[in-house]
Amino acid sequence: MNQLGIVKRHIDRANPEQIKELRSFGVATVHEAMGRVGLMQTYMRPIYQGAHLCGSAVTVLLHPGDNWMMHVVAEQIKPGDVVVAAITAECTDGYFGDLLATSFRARGALGLVIDAGVRDVKDLTAMEFPVFSKAISAKGTIKATIGSVNIPVVCAGALVNPGDIVLADDDGVVVVPLALADQVIQAASQRESNESEKRQKLASGVLGLDMYKMREALDKAGLQYID
Amino acid sequence: MNQLGIVKRHIDRANPEQIKELRSFGVATVHEAMGRVGLMQTYMRPIYQGAHLCGSAVTVLLHPGDNWMMHVVAEQIKPGDVVVAAITAECTDGYFGDLLATSFRARGALGLVIDAGVRDVKDLTAMEFPVFSKAISAKGTIKATIGSVNIPVVCAGALVNPGDIVLADDDGVVVVPLALADQVIQAASQRESNESEKRQKLASGVLGLDMYKMREALDKAGLQYID
Amino acid sequence: MNQLGIVKRHIDRANPEQIKELRSFGVATVHEAMGRVGLMQTYMRPIYQGAHLCGSAVTVLLHPGDNWMMHVVAEQIKPGDVVVAAITAECTDGYFGDLLATSFRARGALGLVIDAGVRDVKDLTAMEFPVFSKAISAKGTIKATIGSVNIPVVCAGALVNPGDIVLADDDGVVVVPLALADQVIQAASQRESNESEKRQKLASGVLGLDMYKMREALDKAGLQYID
Amino acid sequence: MNQLGIVKRHIDRANPEQIKELRSFGVATVHEAMGRVGLMQTYMRPIYQGAHLCGSAVTVLLHPGDNWMMHVVAEQIKPGDVVVAAITAECTDGYFGDLLATSFRARGALGLVIDAGVRDVKDLTAMEFPVFSKAISAKGTIKATIGSVNIPVVCAGALVNPGDIVLADDDGVVVVPLALADQVIQAASQRESNESEKRQKLASGVLGLDMYKMREALDKAGLQYID
Amino acid sequence: MNQLGIVKRHIDRANPEQIKELRSFGVATVHEAMGRVGLMQTYMRPIYQGAHLCGSAVTVLLHPGDNWMMHVVAEQIKPGDVVVAAITAECTDGYFGDLLATSFRARGALGLVIDAGVRDVKDLTAMEFPVFSKAISAKGTIKATIGSVNIPVVCAGALVNPGDIVLADDDGVVVVPLALADQVIQAASQRESNESEKRQKLASGVLGLDMYKMREALDKAGLQYID
Amino acid sequence: MNQLGIVKRHIDRANPEQIKELRSFGVATVHEAMGRVGLMQTYMRPIYQGAHLCGSAVTVLLHPGDNWMMHVVAEQIKPGDVVVAAITAECTDGYFGDLLATSFRARGALGLVIDAGVRDVKDLTAMEFPVFSKAISAKGTIKATIGSVNIPVVCAGALVNPGDIVLADDDGVVVVPLALADQVIQAASQRESNESEKRQKLASGVLGLDMYKMREALDKAGLQYID
Repeated sequence: MNQLGIVKRHIDRANPEQIKELRSFGVATVHEAMGRVGLMQTYMRPIYQGAHLCGSAVTVLLHPGDNWMMHVVAEQIKPGDVVVAAITAECTDGYFGDLLATSFRARGALGLVIDAGVRDVKDLTAMEFPVFSKAISAKGTIKATIGSVNIPVVCAGALVNPGDIVLADDDGVVVVPLALADQVIQAASQRESNESEKRQKLASGVLGLDMYKMREALDKAGLQYID
Repeated sequence: MNQLGIVKRHIDRANPEQIKELRSFGVATVHEAMGRVGLMQTYMRPIYQGAHLCGSAVTVLLHPGDNWMMHVVAEQIKPGDVVVAAITAECTDGYFGDLLATSFRARGALGLVIDAGVRDVKDLTAMEFPVFSKAISAKGTIKATIGSVNIPVVCAGALVNPGDIVLADDDGVVVVPLALADQVIQAASQRESNESEKRQKLASGVLGLDMYKMREALDKAGLQYID
Repeated sequence: MNQLGIVKRHIDRANPEQIKELRSFGVATVHEAMGRVGLMQTYMRPIYQGAHLCGSAVTVLLHPGDNWMMHVVAEQIKPGDVVVAAITAECTDGYFGDLLATSFRARGALGLVIDAGVRDVKDLTAMEFPVFSKAISAKGTIKATIGSVNIPVVCAGALVNPGDIVLADDDGVVVVPLALADQVIQAASQRESNESEKRQKLASGVLGLDMYKMREALDKAGLQYID
Repeated sequence: MNQLGIVKRHIDRANPEQIKELRSFGVATVHEAMGRVGLMQTYMRPIYQGAHLCGSAVTVLLHPGDNWMMHVVAEQIKPGDVVVAAITAECTDGYFGDLLATSFRARGALGLVIDAGVRDVKDLTAMEFPVFSKAISAKGTIKATIGSVNIPVVCAGALVNPGDIVLADDDGVVVVPLALADQVIQAASQRESNESEKRQKLASGVLGLDMYKMREALDKAGLQYID
Repeated sequence: MNQLGIVKRHIDRANPEQIKELRSFGVATVHEAMGRVGLMQTYMRPIYQGAHLCGSAVTVLLHPGDNWMMHVVAEQIKPGDVVVAAITAECTDGYFGDLLATSFRARGALGLVIDAGVRDVKDLTAMEFPVFSKAISAKGTIKATIGSVNIPVVCAGALVNPGDIVLADDDGVVVVPLALADQVIQAASQRESNESEKRQKLASGVLGLDMYKMREALDKAGLQYID
Repeated sequence: MNQLGIVKRHIDRANPEQIKELRSFGVATVHEAMGRVGLMQTYMRPIYQGAHLCGSAVTVLLHPGDNWMMHVVAEQIKPGDVVVAAITAECTDGYFGDLLATSFRARGALGLVIDAGVRDVKDLTAMEFPVFSKAISAKGTIKATIGSVNIPVVCAGALVNPGDIVLADDDGVVVVPLALADQVIQAASQRESNESEKRQKLASGVLGLDMYKMREALDKAGLQYID
């Protein structure tokens, strides 16, 4: 019995309108709009400043030190996809470099999110191929053990189902379940709608204490002002 | 829109026979039987040596520094359950102590697996209440924000659906999806069936090189013996 | 100008009654009684299970890899004191072993709390000399640079003034400012007074949800039960 | 009894001349001038390269996952202040983003030093609002528990009293106690006075061995040259 | 070109007298006797309290997640050897369990030092087979890539040449180069010779300040006593 | 007996042709060419983006918090050398700043690789003096204990013999043993020779699955495609 060794070819993806909408928000906003869930862990960082991506997830599960399935997942990429790579145990080896990035891009991939290491970061940066990873490592991998493609995976603490929308920017990586995309877009829009007004007020010197009417609650909580 | 705030009352659980079978195996054996997947991360450690548990998971998702839902999950415990607690962000605070353990045990819980901290470990040890946690911390929590009970959660890198079987011993924690329980039991049994024979051979001085017939493959891989 | 190089000989200490009272509480209880503050970080662990200490702090600030001031602080120890050792930068070297423990004990010290490493842990365990440390390390130190004794220090994230009461058990280490000792004792006593009643109720199967009357607040917060 | 819940409105601050002087030195120089103390831990990093700040500290102590007091501290900011935020337990959540930065800047704050996470780093960078933090995290916080403002806090291993001068650059963060500011300025000046002469000598090929006359001491210490 | 794939069959080992002598010392003493070098990093911990080993090193270099060479090294073990296992990149997988321990013991191995994870720790503890490791992990490994046996390896930060003596106890692991064994034994003996006298003095209340005649040096260094 | 306290003046170095050749490759390529060995750990990072160095190693072993030997090693630097600094225990203190960089550069050093911290990173960046380090720290060091120069050292998990070639770029740091330089150059050249052809094919949409003829092996390994 083996849970691995499966490649699912057909998955549902977000529609272009959903991607376009979600891409317009920041990771922090989307995570709030979902009820403060869906974030990957904070060790996931962009390999270059300003890296940004938003697309439907094609998932791949690999074994430590083995990147064989990276070639298998390449074939399943559709234009606009983001590859999300999870490992069955902690590993920082360099699973991905400029050759695979060339292949992924040729298939239409927008970028990579990987709970392990990558290498050739100078080339990846020059290509402007966005990668969010746990580590940078020159350590090479082998091709000996199969994993799976397009099964649900846990990447950096977040559950990712194939087709879920992955949004990543300087603040981190958030995963939006496909079925919730429209609701999240709506909630995020509402959240942003009055932000510019708030920003203006705060810039003019109005305090959050007054703008959010916090003084009474703080007093009730026992806050004491002394000189 | 909020993904949290849900308590699912009815979940499917493993049957007593499945639990009894799985309990007889070690975590390493079960993880191998599943194709080397399903493990929580290695930072999950028992609070006392020899802690061991096996049962169906009742899951709870909490926010950092907030253990309100621990009281909500208590009501959903059935005899033989293991509570699996996940947090929406990294946190080491002490969510659980001897009072909650008393309550959980009264409801029939076998133990707790939590991706955060616990306290009163001396009392928990005296009670022989098995806990596998990320940290030990006296830091107290509040009761201000709701989470959910019996939704799928990611705990220490592993996906846990309510009803999945959780097995934990000195080697770590493994999660067996409920639908795979019978297959895993069979695979684990096969794996163990010839272990005692192997152990006897190795104890008598037979080398794994010969027992597993590795010499030819090593030679082909280029291994060279020098003096 | 140099802030180091000072040994303060006379400090105020807690009285024996205060120590006796505080010793009767757990670290978690005392930390709650102070408003959930005063804890050292969770990496501070006892070198043997069951280590426990409570006493007035004699503080010492040392430089990385240099334990010279350990001999200076020894002279300032009064019976019942706990030595609290902080380092000016992160360090895991072994500052303390069985010879210093012999000396400290001869002076009346109850134990050591150190934000660095210790060694000879087998001997220290045999002596039942309680130590809470960040690391165990055989790495030796030198005696080249002076530090200070009985100045305020930051140890594992907690401010410790000389004379403050340090309480440590399996759950961690908490620091009680000397001036607050009586208030903390009172608050901790109140906290514990009805714990046994609560424990009994919970053990009988009463839920925290009912005992603490949480159902209404959870409902108001939007918690939904589904089947 | 609760140590938290206090806002101190009046604190002493460094005078503009002191700030101007200290701002001219690097963190390494100031830390040396104080006797090699006063540094925060090395995990405190600027959110963008070249971030730099120097000002009197307004302190705030918050609970894990709760940024309510950020709005309270905003009101206590005077032009030229640096907000120093400490948390009562380890936490990497994103306590601070572009709205709060707008508010802090409107009050005259120069920047933020926080032993936790921040978000909206792209916006903060565009605003050139200097932040030194432990983490970058999109994870949102709540407003449920009060803390305190302008009490002594431990931030990233350093004691900060309100009014102390905080200096931060690419090398890290150092805290200068207000009472020592003049002495530190003098010592730092002396330290720097002959640096350019030394730099010139070293650039010309003179060895530190000769410039600092180390050869005899090394010989005495037993250093042996072999071929 | 490949540096791996070599098994050296004949290595020099320490003689039984050297092992017997070194076994009588603690790790801290031996490390001091070598000039405070030779220690592995502090994350190397015994899998059970009281684990202790001393023997000549048989070394093995493995790839991440691959324990094939464990079977190759087994054949090279001579009675009294300690297997020292290094990995070419960071890895916490469980390379070693009770079957391999049975085989190693049958060949005469005294124990294992491994810069990775091990599993079946309950069985290993019951067998009293001493293991010092970086992690405990149930994660299984594969047998796909060859490494080398009895080449110089770096294990947990220490260089180990085949035949070097490895000594491990509760304080950590130290490596004694074979060529220095006699000198280290002599230096360690001298170091221990007057320890019992010192211990007695310190136990009687004599201060290290006086026993080591430190007062003058401290005074010269500028130490000031205040009241 | 003391293993430290030695300065070796004459060491063999790589010839300029070897350096020139190796400099043309990336760290990942060279590490693969050596059989996937020789890498330092992934925590070794450049202090500024784009830092790059290649040269023969002059090694130095220092004690925690003590940079005395940095001045000793300076004298042994020949034009084109890279200084490789190892510490006898874990330490993040700032061993190196702009004055030492000025001195090293005056002697002809190309850069520094250090398993500890450095400071004055703004100045080092302005000087374009490449440094690969474990940490950035303003914490100063002392000059009290001698170490050694040009002995074999373990730096960030890699063995470095004096004269070995050290190559570092954005992907990390790799060490090429002097005796293997020519073989590594040849293997790396072969590795790179057909990379551009591969890149072109992948860019045109050819899959690695086909280019590397993996489909049969994957099928044999049991990979299943489902819809």
